Amino acid sequence: MTAQYDVAAIGNAIVDVIAQAQDAFLDAEALSKGSMMLIDEARAHQLYGRMGPGLETSGGSAGNTVAGVASLGGRAAYVGKVAGDTLGEVFAHDMRAIGVHFDTAPLAGGPATARSLINVTPDGQRTMCTFLGASTELTAADVDPAVIEASAILYLEGYLFDPEEARKAFAKASAIARTCERRISLTLSDAFVVERHRDALLGFMESQVDIVFGNEVELASLFQTDDFDAAAKAMGQKVAIAAITRGEAGSVVLAGGQAIAVPAFPVSKVVDTTGAGDQYAAGFLFGLAQGRPLDVCARLGALAAAEVISHYGPRPQTSLRDLAAAQGL
Amino acid sequence: MTAQYDVAAIGNAIVDVIAQAQDAFLDAEALSKGSMMLIDEARAHQLYGRMGPGLETSGGSAGNTVAGVASLGGRAAYVGKVAGDTLGEVFAHDMRAIGVHFDTAPLAGGPATARSLINVTPDGQRTMCTFLGASTELTAADVDPAVIEASAILYLEGYLFDPEEARKAFAKASAIARTCERRISLTLSDAFVVERHRDALLGFMESQVDIVFGNEVELASLFQTDDFDAAAKAMGQKVAIAAITRGEAGSVVLAGGQAIAVPAFPVSKVVDTTGAGDQYAAGFLFGLAQGRPLDVCARLGALAAAEVISHYGPRPQTSLRDLAAAQGL
Repeated sequence: MTAQYDVAAIGNAIVDVIAQAQDAFLDAEALSKGSMMLIDEARAHQLYGRMGPGLETSGGSAGNTVAGVASLGGRAAYVGKVAGDTLGEVFAHDMRAIGVHFDTAPLAGGPATARSLINVTPDGQRTMCTFLGASTELTAADVDPAVIEASAILYLEGYLFDPEEARKAFAKASAIARTCERRISLTLSDAFVVERHRDALLGFMESQVDIVFGNEVELASLFQTDDFDAAAKAMGQKVAIAAITRGEAGSVVLAGGQAIAVPAFPVSKVVDTTGAGDQYAAGFLFGLAQGRPLDVCARLGALAAAEVISHYGPRPQTSLRDLAAAQGL
Repeated sequence: MTAQYDVAAIGNAIVDVIAQAQDAFLDAEALSKGSMMLIDEARAHQLYGRMGPGLETSGGSAGNTVAGVASLGGRAAYVGKVAGDTLGEVFAHDMRAIGVHFDTAPLAGGPATARSLINVTPDGQRTMCTFLGASTELTAADVDPAVIEASAILYLEGYLFDPEEARKAFAKASAIARTCERRISLTLSDAFVVERHRDALLGFMESQVDIVFGNEVELASLFQTDDFDAAAKAMGQKVAIAAITRGEAGSVVLAGGQAIAVPAFPVSKVVDTTGAGDQYAAGFLFGLAQGRPLDVCARLGALAAAEVISHYGPRPQTSLRDLAAAQGL
């Protein structure tokens, strides 16, 4: 069956608040650089009050990924929960404005739209504190079977292993995708997510997942070893395709017992790493949906990641399609 | 009397929604490139629905200027009206986070916080459609005499000549500044503003204003001539100091019968001109408050403008103080 969408993604629908911060600020607020920490509304209010001036922009890991797919010229759909408030309207607008199918009903009468308070240090690293708000109210009922059936690849955000109802949404979507012979992909999202849900993630990967994305820290956490080669080997045995990002060192694709190393795209200055992994996944998934070879998929991922880390904000500001064309991809 | 603040500014408190657009979009929406057009809430809703994905960030001309003053290491205060909603909280946060004194009470029970829908074309030009909302509810009662008395320079935004109540706030603030022997500065803001309020602006300039900021289009509109030299001469006779910006051609400072031309700072790529004039005024006013010569004031203005046009968003993303130090200013 031809697919109407290249990618259908399920994730936490989040608006980002991006501010510049010094390392001393992270220390004072007891934040672990580069991580994503969950916070409650009171802490969000307190931390926001202490942060620098912000840029507000739609985010959410899988949301950023479908934005990247759209920027590459792909067709995408998104499932995620916002509230019926100003930030929820912003999130929905930003999805529809780039042509991404998004019709999850906004939450009525519950918590506010999720926001992630992102402090970017002078080295370009982002440290996220997320108040999940309405995003955790996503349920299996929000998964429209027709959208999953119509999508070549289902993309699931590891962050959604935290709320139990969202895991049911994953199970529902995966079952539909499996029945329709669609591919299922998963991002590990964050080392702490892996720490919290290691066994569940491994079980889900083995039983359902075709393609896994992660960075080397998440990989180390998943297999509880700092030996990259050993962890990569273990990963290669779990899923058909695994794409592991290694920052400046590029990425490694594990498939069919092979390891394909692809370098990072050069960037003149790393401004803000927010969305780097999300955009890598966007390029990779777009390539995969187009039937491109795995090394080209990884190069598309590297190109998309390079664009997004060269400015503040987690989504492309330049047409990735044009950039890819300019690079002969 | 020593001044507690270098600059106290009164302006429309606005949150910007910045999106990329093609020239054809401006044509289809009947927007005049480079201008600021006032729109009502219904049109704002319609236009937003047609725009691309947005970056939300605090703006407002005078608000951007005090942000620039703060980035240069100066002390500033701001007077402007937001509503008690999410965007109003964002605006207030962004002011306080950079150390700008801001305690205008939010509007209760009226229109929403003002927003400016800014479409940026590939040439970097910004076209603004502003729903003024709560910002027009600023009244003379919002002007705290103590803040005006404590500020070396009062800075007024020409945009506020539109609402009658705000003009009363200007009159009150000017009278206080005059009594305390503080300097009064005014930006012409926009050629259409000049068109609508030419006589009132000229009268106000002659009776109250020491320093005027404008670009060459606003200058031409004010004196109804395309002859720059003639308009500049007329301007030089109206106020003690006038600083006229000319885009890539730099700026000209008119004072004491002299015209001082200062070049623009080179920029590798003009991304978004939003806030260029506001940042020029920030650099100039900061220099003036520090007692620097007029050509140095203009150079500080050019430097601040160059920073802001090299990225999306109307406020500095790099410390202007550090940039100025690096340039020996």
